[in-house]
Amino acid sequence: MTAPTVIEIKKDVFTKNNRIAVINRAIFKETKVTALNFVSSPGAGKTSLLVKTISEIKDKINFAVIEGDQQTDNDARRIAKTGAQVTQINTMSACHLDASMTLKALDHIDLTTIHLLMIENVGNLVCPASYDLGEKMKVALVSVTEGDDKPAKYPNMFRASKALVITKTDLLPYVDFDVDKCVELARNINPEIRLFTLSVSSGEGLDEWYSFLTGLKSHEI
Amino acid sequence: MTAPTVIEIKKDVFTKNNRIAVINRAIFKETKVTALNFVSSPGAGKTSLLVKTISEIKDKINFAVIEGDQQTDNDARRIAKTGAQVTQINTMSACHLDASMTLKALDHIDLTTIHLLMIENVGNLVCPASYDLGEKMKVALVSVTEGDDKPAKYPNMFRASKALVITKTDLLPYVDFDVDKCVELARNINPEIRLFTLSVSSGEGLDEWYSFLTGLKSHEI
Repeated sequence: MTAPTVIEIKKDVFTKNNRIAVINRAIFKETKVTALNFVSSPGAGKTSLLVKTISEIKDKINFAVIEGDQQTDNDARRIAKTGAQVTQINTMSACHLDASMTLKALDHIDLTTIHLLMIENVGNLVCPASYDLGEKMKVALVSVTEGDDKPAKYPNMFRASKALVITKTDLLPYVDFDVDKCVELARNINPEIRLFTLSVSSGEGLDEWYSFLTGLKSHEI
Repeated sequence: MTAPTVIEIKKDVFTKNNRIAVINRAIFKETKVTALNFVSSPGAGKTSLLVKTISEIKDKINFAVIEGDQQTDNDARRIAKTGAQVTQINTMSACHLDASMTLKALDHIDLTTIHLLMIENVGNLVCPASYDLGEKMKVALVSVTEGDDKPAKYPNMFRASKALVITKTDLLPYVDFDVDKCVELARNINPEIRLFTLSVSSGEGLDEWYSFLTGLKSHEI
């Protein structure tokens, strides 16, 4: 059930993408910015987590955000209320951000004043796994309403990510989601993946998440 | 923020896909099978809805199922318990089913004995919108845990779908989801879209869904 033509085309796309990702990575190194690439299904809670995180620890960390969506600037407007610099990319037909889009967005961000660049990818558990944006790491979110088998069904994403954030844990009483099973499936694919379980609504687990981000802050401004 | 090279490549892919979709459509017409292409984010509840539906109305409608996933046959095994014919397609790196994969799956299904072919696409609100499998209609699912703005953020999918199923309505008390807003956003894009709101857990709304499917049954076997 393979589609060889598509695969060949994608290899070419990846080569071009990876060349630009090298440029992005050099820019991040030069400016001492740590870039995180947030990936998940639509509605897993990426924007909510970013809004909460920036609102609560912006006195410790200077954030900027790149928002990727097919259309609308809803998420960018939500982020902007936190006071962080935010740039919206509308990918239109494309199902993921790529390194070139990211590089263009960097023109609109003053990297010299920030510590962490939070890149919110298009909601999609498949395609963004294959695109290096030059980030330090991909952070994959899974909400407890999605089903605990997602790491097995979309293994490329969980192999490509260095952190797994299980979100919306306040809804655990109402859904059939086994946190241990989800973590086991993720670690079968990626034994080193760093785990966070949290709820933006209840606040559970956020302190550990904030400590992790604070540890990634690499320089004083 | 466009990526012209990718768009050109996709046009070529679409042309080839559409040629095979014509073949699939001819097969469905010849065998009097109605094919529905179920699309949504990962975890919106496609498999749960199919399992419930087949279990409850299989005495009225003969179903077969094609399951699309990047990896695993978890969903096919869940469906098989209902007694329906089921064929799993593992798309591996691909983020959607295409008409060619669907045609190959048809080799494994006895279409002469069924009324409705339920095709469960890969969980992805972007890419499957662009691929005609030869189906009568796409049916888009949105769960109430995903956020009510999904039709605005992923308009191509809701434009391409003839029915919208809002799922997991039993969770409405615990989440911030405005059903009317979601429907309004979908109808801004696609005024004719048919609406269902339901919960597989509580059973709310299922009767109307079953009536709809029974109406699609086009012949006696």
